[in-house]
This record gives sequence, structure tokens and C-alpha cells, in this order.
Amino acid sequence: MKKQKTILITNDDGINTRGLNKLIAIAKDYGKVVVVAPDQARSGQSHAVSVAIPLYLTKIRTEENFEEYICSGTPVDAIKLGEQIVLRENPDLILSGINHGSNASVNVIYSGTMAAAREASIDGIPGIGFSLLDYAPDANFDEAEKYIRHIIEEVLQNGLPPNVALNVNIPAVAEKDLKGIKVCHQSQGRWEEMMEERKDEKGNIFYWLTGTFKDMEEDDNGDIKRLEQNYITITPVQIDITAYRHIPELKNRFDTL
Amino acid sequence: MKKQKTILITNDDGINTRGLNKLIAIAKDYGKVVVVAPDQARSGQSHAVSVAIPLYLTKIRTEENFEEYICSGTPVDAIKLGEQIVLRENPDLILSGINHGSNASVNVIYSGTMAAAREASIDGIPGIGFSLLDYAPDANFDEAEKYIRHIIEEVLQNGLPPNVALNVNIPAVAEKDLKGIKVCHQSQGRWEEMMEERKDEKGNIFYWLTGTFKDMEEDDNGDIKRLEQNYITITPVQIDITAYRHIPELKNRFDTL
Repeated sequence: MKKQKTILITNDDGINTRGLNKLIAIAKDYGKVVVVAPDQARSGQSHAVSVAIPLYLTKIRTEENFEEYICSGTPVDAIKLGEQIVLRENPDLILSGINHGSNASVNVIYSGTMAAAREASIDGIPGIGFSLLDYAPDANFDEAEKYIRHIIEEVLQNGLPPNVALNVNIPAVAEKDLKGIKVCHQSQGRWEEMMEERKDEKGNIFYWLTGTFKDMEEDDNGDIKRLEQNYITITPVQIDITAYRHIPELKNRFDTL
Repeated sequence: MKKQKTILITNDDGINTRGLNKLIAIAKDYGKVVVVAPDQARSGQSHAVSVAIPLYLTKIRTEENFEEYICSGTPVDAIKLGEQIVLRENPDLILSGINHGSNASVNVIYSGTMAAAREASIDGIPGIGFSLLDYAPDANFDEAEKYIRHIIEEVLQNGLPPNVALNVNIPAVAEKDLKGIKVCHQSQGRWEEMMEERKDEKGNIFYWLTGTFKDMEEDDNGDIKRLEQNYITITPVQIDITAYRHIPELKNRFDTL
């Protein structure tokens, strides 16, 4: 008899969020599901790990083929705890999300959701991060369900290339308006930020990060443009961040001969 | 008259560390130096940003052509505060470090030091992160000074390619044993980690991240191998993490036609 698949799930919005609950409900149809989620919202935590900080792990639910834990760390900590303490072996698949808000373009760098999926790829496990383009706590995660299922089924069956994770972003539109799936690349873009000056109750000045995103991509197959066309985007991402095409020029400038 | 250069400095080991102080001392010879450093050690913070958390900024020193601030956030927050609140314009150069410990290979992903340099590249500013292969608080940062000066001078004069930052790692050996500089790529490698189970004073179990690094690179020009040969390594890094070479295969698997 074929061994049951094990799926480890985390997110960066924390436990009891609509996006996480939707992903759990879907994943349960494909195997044993173990959730290790941060005990609080951890948006913007990127690939942060808890170095020299104690990590607490608490089991909050056990059902048949389902276990749910919270941990005191980041999404990447949650993956490490899930693999090493809860499962004590590599799962067949790691899912992260469904994030409340886009992780397209440069957002992928800041995202804890996507860092968890990338951490999976370092450990040789297929990892997929899902994000819906709606930050609202009561966002509707139902419209893209058939596509999410298709992507999970395909990856469970065929795996992913080594050291590659998938960054899946989903337009916040009705199912009938979704045009399908496009594999694309990370659009060039940046946040035009403003550190807003505010005052706390003691009159001390503090700064609050706000901003608007600016798409600077010129190619048609960037993830932002495809999302605007109502495609679900799959951007394959990797761990190696070397700027290979600039190595020859920089060798000329810096190498000791 | 030529305008004086402005250099913004941060790190992830926090204020009053030997590596930061060495970098400040060197940078002062090249222009006006503004330091915005985290008020505590922020190792392993990666590209984390403080979303929906107040950020406090405190000036701790002003001298001629030198200002030093601490902030309550991450290294990337420090860059944003330095650009937007302290300088109110882009500096000519952003330096990060000198980190106590290696940021070669996969460490670059977890590093707050290197995230600050990459954040500079998003904002169109040349960014360089320096790291010495010695974690000790009293590590000796003097041996590579002439190389650090050379790299800073070269980048101030010629800039960097768009969206590229430099990850500079320095072997912890005497100056006479340093062989020079090699531009190279991020070695493939990973941490073989162990979440150590420990108990706190109340008897609660917590987990503590430990591990050993495993070099898995086969190419001779990976940064780990070059460091073992006593070269100072420059690994150019970028923001775009798309796994381009896998796009055709994944398009065949997932694209809606």
C-alpha cells in the first residue's frame, strides 16, 4: 500500500486566519497535515531565524491525520521546528499561506510566507507559497480553490526542480474572471516608502512604515502584469542570489590576478 | 568644488561592536558618515521590516562630518530611516558590517547585514556588506583594512551595476596570509541544523537553534572554496530571485494556453 503523504503547513499571518484555514482544508484531502504556525502575525519577517532566542512550541489540536501547533518564532523557525521536532523527518510537501496580500515582485524578498517555502527548497522539499491579492482579514479565499488544488496535485505527483520553490499569487476576483495560470518572472518594482512621523501617548516621536508599490517591469511576462490580466501567477524562485551576468565585469574590476 | 560624499552605515550586530567601529573609522576618510544601527543584536533578521510596529530613532552622537543613531528596528529598517528621516536624500554609498561571522553561501539569505546592502540596491544606491569569518566579539578587524579601503574607493569611483550589491567576506587570517580578492558566486550549501531541546527556569521545554554548515558546491569559484584559499571574496548579489532556467519546464507543466 502506498504510504500516505505528509504535508507541513505554515504562514506569516498567524494562526486562525482565513487564508491558513482555507489552505488546511484543501491540504487535508491530500494526506496527513501538520500545521506549525507563528503565534502572532509575522508579516514582513522575510527569512529571519531566531538566533540565540528560545523557541516555544505548543500543540493546540490533534485529530485524525491532523495536528496543529503554534510557535514563538518566525515562519522559517516554524518550518525548522515542524521538520525537526514535530515530524522528525522531511514532509512530502511544504505549503505556506494563503497569505493575506500580494507577494509578487519585490514583496517576495520581504515575505515570511515565501521565506518558509524557500526554506523548504534548501532542505530538498517541494515548497509552495500561496498569496491572495487582498490584505483584508475577511478576504474571500474560495474563488481560486480549483487552481490551488491543481497546483498542489501536480507538485505532489511530479515534484519540483532542486532548490526551487513556487511563489503563487492569486488575483482577488471571482472564479469566472480568473483566466488561468501563467508561469512568469518576478517583476522589477519597489516600494516608494514614507516613514510617517507619529507620536506615542508619552509624546515620543516614532516612525511608521507606509508606502505605495511601483511596478517598473517592462517585460510582458512579469508577475505584476499577469496578475493585472487576472492570471494566477507561478513565479519559480531560488536560493542562489548571485548576479551571475555581472561577474565578468566585476572580475575585471576587482580580481587579484 | 566637488560635493562631499555621504556614506550611510548600518550592521546587524548592533551599536558599539568592533566590526561596526572599524567600518566607521575607515569610512570617515571618504566623506560624511551617518550611522543608523539597530539598538540590539539583530543577527539572522534577513530582510525583515517592521510592519505595523512603531520605530524609534535616537541620535547618540554628532561630530564634524559624523552622526550616529540607534533605531528600534531591523537592519533594513535602519536603512529606510537613514535615507528618509536622517539624510532625506539618497547617500552616495551604503555600507553594512563589518559583520562578526561569515555571510558566504546560504548565510547571505539569513543575514541582516547583507539584507541592508541589498535594500540599498533596490533604492538605486551602491551597497556593500562586509563580513569577517570570526564570530568573536573581540575579533581582529585590522588585517584586511587595505582591501576594504580598495573596494570602497573603487565603488565610490565607479559605482555598481543597477540592482546589484556586493557581499564581501574576509578570511580571519593575518594580512600576510591574505592572497587578494576574487569575485565569485554563492556556494551551494546548507545548515545541518539541530533544534536542541532545553528547559527554562520554570521547567518549560524550549528549542535552541544550533547546527553545522555543509558546503555542497562543486565549482571552484564558489565563495566558500575561495575563502578557504585565503582570498577575500566578492559575491555580487541581486534582488530578482526568479529561477529563470526552470521557467520553460514549468510553463509546460502549468501554463493555461
